[in-house]
Amino acid sequence: MATTREESLHLHRQNRGKLAVKSKVPVRNAKDLSLAYSPGVAEPCKEIFDNPETVFEYTMKGNMVAVVSDGTAVLGLGNIGPEAALPVMEGKAVLFKAFAGVDAFPICLDTTEVDKIVETVKLLEPTFGGVNLEDIAAPNCFEIEERLKRETNIPIFHDDQHGTAIVTLAGLVNALKVVGKELSRIKVVINGAGAAGIAIIKLLYRMGVRDMILCDSKGAIYEGRPYGMNPIKEEVAKLTNRHFVQGDLDDAIREADVFIGVSVAGALTKDMIQSMNDDPIIFAMANPVPEIMPEEAFEAGAKVMGTGRSDYPNQVNNVLAFPGIFRGALDVYATHINEEMKEAAVYAIADLISDNELSADYVIPAPFDPRVAPAVAAAVAKAAMETGVARRRVDPSEVAKKTRELASIKD
Amino acid sequence: MATTREESLHLHRQNRGKLAVKSKVPVRNAKDLSLAYSPGVAEPCKEIFDNPETVFEYTMKGNMVAVVSDGTAVLGLGNIGPEAALPVMEGKAVLFKAFAGVDAFPICLDTTEVDKIVETVKLLEPTFGGVNLEDIAAPNCFEIEERLKRETNIPIFHDDQHGTAIVTLAGLVNALKVVGKELSRIKVVINGAGAAGIAIIKLLYRMGVRDMILCDSKGAIYEGRPYGMNPIKEEVAKLTNRHFVQGDLDDAIREADVFIGVSVAGALTKDMIQSMNDDPIIFAMANPVPEIMPEEAFEAGAKVMGTGRSDYPNQVNNVLAFPGIFRGALDVYATHINEEMKEAAVYAIADLISDNELSADYVIPAPFDPRVAPAVAAAVAKAAMETGVARRRVDPSEVAKKTRELASIKD
Repeated sequence: MATTREESLHLHRQNRGKLAVKSKVPVRNAKDLSLAYSPGVAEPCKEIFDNPETVFEYTMKGNMVAVVSDGTAVLGLGNIGPEAALPVMEGKAVLFKAFAGVDAFPICLDTTEVDKIVETVKLLEPTFGGVNLEDIAAPNCFEIEERLKRETNIPIFHDDQHGTAIVTLAGLVNALKVVGKELSRIKVVINGAGAAGIAIIKLLYRMGVRDMILCDSKGAIYEGRPYGMNPIKEEVAKLTNRHFVQGDLDDAIREADVFIGVSVAGALTKDMIQSMNDDPIIFAMANPVPEIMPEEAFEAGAKVMGTGRSDYPNQVNNVLAFPGIFRGALDVYATHINEEMKEAAVYAIADLISDNELSADYVIPAPFDPRVAPAVAAAVAKAAMETGVARRRVDPSEVAKKTRELASIKD
Repeated sequence: MATTREESLHLHRQNRGKLAVKSKVPVRNAKDLSLAYSPGVAEPCKEIFDNPETVFEYTMKGNMVAVVSDGTAVLGLGNIGPEAALPVMEGKAVLFKAFAGVDAFPICLDTTEVDKIVETVKLLEPTFGGVNLEDIAAPNCFEIEERLKRETNIPIFHDDQHGTAIVTLAGLVNALKVVGKELSRIKVVINGAGAAGIAIIKLLYRMGVRDMILCDSKGAIYEGRPYGMNPIKEEVAKLTNRHFVQGDLDDAIREADVFIGVSVAGALTKDMIQSMNDDPIIFAMANPVPEIMPEEAFEAGAKVMGTGRSDYPNQVNNVLAFPGIFRGALDVYATHINEEMKEAAVYAIADLISDNELSADYVIPAPFDPRVAPAVAAAVAKAAMETGVARRRVDPSEVAKKTRELASIKD
């Protein structure tokens, strides 16, 4: 890893960061200048003033996503502040571009106050066609996202919540095929009540899972638990743990079919896996070291195993979701990213693996599979049109085609 | 002009705006991903957390300027709002890149309140190495700039004020050589008390001009004028009109050596020019139709004439100033753009025209003269280092060389 450190520092220093701005029009002479700038630029200005929705046609807004962070929950580094978070946000923007041709721009904010973050993003709405919230600590991230969804008319998406949830669910949908179980009949234990854990619970519920227990560092969460609660945990408790299981993870996990970890290295033991139902499915996504290493999990009887790591099969990597989701949302000038669009993304990812190819070692497509972003974009655009959050209609197959053209990730 | 309208709309629609984001690093495989994003990206994050000033080395911040507008004073269109202003801000960013390799990004804000604009820009400080304020109406623009200069540690520059002032002064410096007069001994009348007019007055004063009258739509401004004043006009009145001239422009302009118009078409008449001193110098910069057309001005005896137009000699075009100014400021990690840096830019532009080349028709370099931005950048960087606002030292000739390399405007 010493070489990765040096290589990464060199890469970042060599280019002074990773992101640049690029002109899509030539500026070689006075004629060019008169069209792209004064006086010609007055024409699109007047068009937009007269017909505000043409801002999507005449400006960058329709393809531009803000990657907004306050630097409070960056990777595994924690609260390192907005300037130290900038390399991550630049990296995210690089991925948006490479995987789906989405222009994305880092907005690292010098505040951790919910009101100020919400206010700032609202003031930036004229400039951006969407907002990807990133690395904002729970529980602030929930309130910020909810308020922005209500108070703006552009897609708001907290990737640490929903990106992770979507890819995990895609993997779960396929894993259940491998073991021959159904969403509506399984018991799922989720360990970790941060941004990702909460979003996973909500998406599981939406997709039909009813038997769930969410655990935090204090153990199983149940309605009315007298310690370590907050409003979002109270809300989740209403949907989960219907048998009011109390105790630690090893109490909660008994006879579960699925374990989903978004917590810390080593949180899951072989004994716990052995207490689960037959053919247990394990998504152990703590980074860089998972809740249990795959070798151990399989020894204990795990049937399907996913992690956040690139050196094992079934990597749960958000890059499978966010580029295509925003591509699809932007292409229909969506006002929101709703639950239907997220669910469409889950199945778009899952369905890329045919029944013939499906196996315990292949329930999630590889991060660089060039089919993913086009499929997700098309499915998300379609769902947006069907649910009334699209401001224009497009042919989903055209969305997929355009995504393939724009992406630099190719076969 | 009908074809310009169609051509400009087509250009903007064809590309959905003019600005894109570009990755400076490759993302082709898992190895690339691990360096540009997780886990490698943690390394520059940690470096910046430990040593905040390295943000200029490891991120885009050191080359990234925000082009901030509230859309209240856009071109000649007035208060068209932030979305309709976006094509202009994209165009500005295109020019930053083409002329000096500066990455610039539009930030169009959905508010016209001074407090909110100031607060937002301060919250964006972690992301940007400088801020170019653009098309914000007077008098708000003055307060916004002053507060941001005090309350941030990155260069703040309102181009409509200082860009115009710098290029005008460069032209004036050379025009005075043509007519054999000196800054300290001339009388200057400035018509128009908006952003540009105020900035021109201040820069003239700094550069030694003492006999000045500023006129607004109500006539000559003098200390204590009982109508049409505001705090900034009161401040300017203390520096100008020492004889307390009252009345209209035709009263103020008598025996002036220089007329500078940043007002409206037709404001200057031949009679007024005939009332000026010998060899009058006229900068008539109302756009697109100047205060007086050059043909008329010369008939009335004008010796040197500048306008904002590309179809006459001596075009006062801000593009001669802002790209090089930010290039120079960014290259030394400047905390501010101070008066010394602006004056250095004036002389850098003026001095590009040698005494041999100098003539009434050539007192200002052409907008596409590729020598301009490198010369301005070097002079501004040098002035920043000499006045203590530079956070690092560089060789000015290296700044010029790098600017030539980065600019797409070439010989």
